[in-house]
Amino acid sequence: MTKPTPMRGVLSPVVMPFKPNLAPDAERLVRQCRWLLSQGCGVAVFGTNSEANSLSIEEKIELLDALVEGGIDPKRLMPGTGLCAIPDTVRLTTHAVKRGCGGVLMLPPFYYKDVSEEGLFKSYAEVIERVGDSQLQIYLYHIPPVAQVPIPLALIERLVRAYPDTVIGIKDSGGDWAYSEAILERLPGFAVFSGSETVLLKNMQAGGAGCISATANINAAAIHQLFSNWQQSDAEVLQSLVNHLRTGMQKYPMIPALKQVVAHYSGDEEWVRVRPPLIELGAEQKTKLIEWLEDHGFEMPGLAAA
Amino acid sequence: MTKPTPMRGVLSPVVMPFKPNLAPDAERLVRQCRWLLSQGCGVAVFGTNSEANSLSIEEKIELLDALVEGGIDPKRLMPGTGLCAIPDTVRLTTHAVKRGCGGVLMLPPFYYKDVSEEGLFKSYAEVIERVGDSQLQIYLYHIPPVAQVPIPLALIERLVRAYPDTVIGIKDSGGDWAYSEAILERLPGFAVFSGSETVLLKNMQAGGAGCISATANINAAAIHQLFSNWQQSDAEVLQSLVNHLRTGMQKYPMIPALKQVVAHYSGDEEWVRVRPPLIELGAEQKTKLIEWLEDHGFEMPGLAAA
Repeated sequence: MTKPTPMRGVLSPVVMPFKPNLAPDAERLVRQCRWLLSQGCGVAVFGTNSEANSLSIEEKIELLDALVEGGIDPKRLMPGTGLCAIPDTVRLTTHAVKRGCGGVLMLPPFYYKDVSEEGLFKSYAEVIERVGDSQLQIYLYHIPPVAQVPIPLALIERLVRAYPDTVIGIKDSGGDWAYSEAILERLPGFAVFSGSETVLLKNMQAGGAGCISATANINAAAIHQLFSNWQQSDAEVLQSLVNHLRTGMQKYPMIPALKQVVAHYSGDEEWVRVRPPLIELGAEQKTKLIEWLEDHGFEMPGLAAA
Repeated sequence: MTKPTPMRGVLSPVVMPFKPNLAPDAERLVRQCRWLLSQGCGVAVFGTNSEANSLSIEEKIELLDALVEGGIDPKRLMPGTGLCAIPDTVRLTTHAVKRGCGGVLMLPPFYYKDVSEEGLFKSYAEVIERVGDSQLQIYLYHIPPVAQVPIPLALIERLVRAYPDTVIGIKDSGGDWAYSEAILERLPGFAVFSGSETVLLKNMQAGGAGCISATANINAAAIHQLFSNWQQSDAEVLQSLVNHLRTGMQKYPMIPALKQVVAHYSGDEEWVRVRPPLIELGAEQKTKLIEWLEDHGFEMPGLAAA
């Protein structure tokens, strides 16, 4: 088998539908991924915004199987597979590679804090050696506001030196542009995905690969348009349009707000459910959010029919 | 079956021995737990200091079986069972209850940060309802420096109101005495364990239940003596003795330092191994630590023969 082509473009960390008993709803997830693909978006399932760390590893393995068997092109899948314990990360990553996923998004082990660069290097190295598959393509996942375990630049450089064909990119959800910029300068060709579309144009101008953003769950087409047109004269306008939606969404807890929007525009209230420790938006928040979106003419074309 | 008696005294979050291939070493763990019990200590396996979040759930289930089958009294066992995903916490907790454990120490789900009290309440409630066993005895695990998800006092009160026979205590590793004090004032009878023996005397004087402390791995007998004698005239002296050792240990990363001490005093170098993202002490650190202990006449009686 040839190695998967490095991914580029816009990916959505797909929100996770739950049944009334809080079990994951594979059928709705497959439909949602299909719709996202139709909007030009890749599917980064099991991201932070997917409530992935509220799912067991068995649930994730079953969902991945359902996605591939449901016709989602695995080359467009970038599941999150980084867990706290090495055996778990190895198990889920191995499964993702076997199912042909285009890449995996890998958190560092996130329970122990203030760990050394050496310890993080050993964690990733141990996973790579144990998976032991040349098809493995890792995108590191830097999200210090949530994981509270950052991925220092020196660690990236060391991993790329040791595993140049495996550690090929990063999602930067740190919110500090200087970090992305430093990676792009030091490691040309390393695939840097912004964690927010608000810096997508800047990222593309600096040599980046795209973005993997929460709001791509609801605004995929517009963000994809910005990605496609970043070298065109209207890029700044497209950037400001997607920024506007993002700013509106950020007034709410992101995951329940995304689910509320999907529920409203799909006409399917099942979508609002979250797993604890998250909670749904309050009634007033729901109303205000939808009013704001409708006032701005927001649409999710094709979703209700998906 | 009658409910387990609420636990009191000193418990050790037992450090985890690993084989050369980094698999957990059940046999060494059983021996270590036996030794700790002989020192008057209960065994809080799968704590932060046990590298529990670097173990898979299957590894923990197997180890728990090995402990009980190896003759460790389950009534003296307080395994850590709180994981990020509700199905995982339910699975491990159910197993602990079935094996007759005296209690479980339960972290809140720790990936998502800044979650609401309501969301945390729902997490614990969902676990309790799903385990659905009147034998379940939960000690909450408050360790904001590591989990980064604190357990607010109002949440404890709400859980105790809803589940008075199930949520019966807490380990306070927050390092803020005012928090323990507030719990003891508001919830008389609720079992408050200090996360460090340095406040054990204060905790006992205020009505606390004991301590669950990293350094109980190596200084169990002395800490237990303080616990037993807290109302005696020499309590302050005993407190200052255990403080002295703790202060010495805190100059090093705690988990690898504890393992180095166990390795040295048992004469079993296998003990030094840690799982990434942790790393062993450096050679110079090891030498300095052991020299300091020997200069102070530190001993671990009976360990080498255990």
